[in-house]
Formats: sequence, C-alpha cells, structure tokens
Amino acid sequence: MGDIMVIGIAGGTGSGKTTITGQISERLGDEVTVITHDNYYRAHHEMTYEERTLLNYDHPDAYETELLVEHLAALRRGESVEVPVYDFTTYDRTDRTTTVKPSRAIIVEGIVIFAHPELRDLMDVKVFVDADADVRILRRILRDVQERGRSLESVINQYLTTVKPMHEAFVEPSKRYADIIIPTGGQNLVALDMLVNRIQAHLDGE
Amino acid sequence: MGDIMVIGIAGGTGSGKTTITGQISERLGDEVTVITHDNYYRAHHEMTYEERTLLNYDHPDAYETELLVEHLAALRRGESVEVPVYDFTTYDRTDRTTTVKPSRAIIVEGIVIFAHPELRDLMDVKVFVDADADVRILRRILRDVQERGRSLESVINQYLTTVKPMHEAFVEPSKRYADIIIPTGGQNLVALDMLVNRIQAHLDGE
Repeated sequence: MGDIMVIGIAGGTGSGKTTITGQISERLGDEVTVITHDNYYRAHHEMTYEERTLLNYDHPDAYETELLVEHLAALRRGESVEVPVYDFTTYDRTDRTTTVKPSRAIIVEGIVIFAHPELRDLMDVKVFVDADADVRILRRILRDVQERGRSLESVINQYLTTVKPMHEAFVEPSKRYADIIIPTGGQNLVALDMLVNRIQAHLDGE
Repeated sequence: MGDIMVIGIAGGTGSGKTTITGQISERLGDEVTVITHDNYYRAHHEMTYEERTLLNYDHPDAYETELLVEHLAALRRGESVEVPVYDFTTYDRTDRTTTVKPSRAIIVEGIVIFAHPELRDLMDVKVFVDADADVRILRRILRDVQERGRSLESVINQYLTTVKPMHEAFVEPSKRYADIIIPTGGQNLVALDMLVNRIQAHLDGE
C-alpha cells in the first residue's frame, strides 16, 4: 500500500471511536489526517427537514462511500481533496467543504466503514472500538440531547427503530474484519499507546 | 510499574496465543522473556497417571499462580527465577526447572491469566487472542493428537467435559479485562506489528 498508512477506526454509536481518534490526533498532531465517514452522508436538499429526519442514517447506503473511496485514492496519489461538511442539526450536507491535504497517516472513522469492501481494502490497519450496548446508548443520549439539541424521545425512537437494528445487521457483523478490537474504548490508554506507537513507527519509516 | 513491561497474552485453547507469542519473540529476540502459565500447573506426584488424567486442567485452581506472582515480583526486582517444567505426556510437573533472567519486557501467556486479580494487576498490557470456537477445537485436536500423542476420543471427551465449560465460566468472562482483543489470532500480522511496535517503543525507552 506504499508509503501512506490508512487506519480505519469503526465501532457502534457511543463506542468511544471519536474519543480515541481525537486522542491519537492530539498525540501525533499534523502528521495524521482524520476523515470522518459522517461527513459523507448523502445530500438531500430536495427533501424537507421533516422528511430528512425520517431517513435511516445507520444503513451503509446513507453514505456516499464511493466519494470517500475516490478521496482516499487521491490522497494516496498525493493530491488534496475537498471533504464535504455535514450539518447534524439540519440533517443535510452543507455547501461548505474542508480541504484535506495528503499525509503519511490517514485515519478514517465511522460506524459502518468495515461494511464496504472497497473502502475496507484501502485500509492497512482496521480497529474496531467496542463497548457494551447500555454504555453506548447512554453516551449517545448525552451527545444528541446536549450537543445536537434533540429531544430524548426522538433519540430513543431513532435508536430503537434504526440505530439498534442497523447495528445488529451491519456494525456488529463487520467486527470480524477488524485486525484489533478495543474494548472500553475512549478510556483505554493502553490501547491508545499501542495505536500511537504503531502509527509513529510508520511515520519513522519502519 | 517501573522500567519493566509485563504483557499478558490470554485466550482460549487453540486461539493462536502461543503462535502470536512465538512471533513476538522471534521479532524481538532476547529482549523479551516468555513465561507460560502452563508450566505452573500444580505437581501431582502423589497420584497415578490415571488419576491425573481425570483432573480439571482448565480451572484457574489447577495452576500454582501464587508461584508465578512471586516470580514476576522477583523478575521486577531484577532477580532470576526457576520456572518449573511441566510434562504434558505424563500430566505432571517434572523435577527440572528453566532459569529465567530478568528482562525489560516479559510476556506471560496462558488461558486463564486474566482470571487471577493479583496476576492481572502485575500486567501493563493485557491482550486477549480470540478465534471462533470451531476453529479453536480443530487446532486443539491437531495439537493434542499429533504433538501430545492423545487419542481423538480423549481430546473430544476432555473438551466437552472440562475445556468448554471452563472456557465459558472463566476464559470468556476474563476477556473484559483485556486492553485489546486480537481476532483471528495467529495469522494476524497487523496486530502482530502493533504489539511489536508497542514493546519496541518500551525497549527504546519511550
């Protein structure tokens, strides 16, 4: 896969994957680029807000993964890419993009990134962050209610109707593609050290 | 935990933990010491061979773990230890020992090493090697029949009467103490690189 290392960090909602990704970023700084699959949620400008809230955001088809695959290929070729910016309050893609420059280590983070074979094949290291389902839903409630301004009722309804069944259908089975599984993600400093040491060894040219 | 890193590598029978341990050893050489919990199986010179074959070797109490804990403490103090040598063909401890010298990285490998709190607390990194139960029993059959000269019938009987129930009672629940879980252990080169890089970073003084 050449000189660029692509690290996939997957895991269910509330598993702690974003926390781990943030900690790696903090430890390794600009040498690591982070791309979030959520930013590739398909645009639905043609729908009303109400219609958009009713979509299934936990199915792999909700993402424009083919664009992410293109972007990773471009980054591998040494080209910059324009990553879309998604707005969770309007449930839609914005017109803004973020310019992402190529770097020697790229983290791709998302719930169902291991469910897409073409995307999976672009990854050198596949990490699945795991946590018990009760811990995960509690974290999701805190995040969606406090940070994304949603009602408790809507969070619970979405969880039971789409998040949980999609987790069981796509996220949990994709764990078998992982090279390593990190339990108690987010507070797991031993696993964090291991990931940081692995990426650092790559950056050092080993 | 000072300057010595203790890495615990646990996992059920046939999970691939011995293969991974061997590969780490091969990559890092003399800088890493390996201690196998199996060598701490209790001595039963007072019993006949027949009586010994009927013991439950998959329960945590089958091991003289208190001796292993003492040995690890001694190694941390910079002292050499005499590790007992177990004979799987006679189901008994031999009178021989292996001298193990202190080193900056010590791997402790065994099925139920995470089930013993005092032993667990001596570990800086806890790795659980995982594999599907059907794959594990097939590996165990090959090992016990071909390498340890046991009959297929005795292997299956031991598996169903003690190995499997003890796995479910002690090994599987101890997975929750792991810092990282390695699926498809044994052929997992990505996870192997990660462990090697982590230990190397410690040896390099990071």
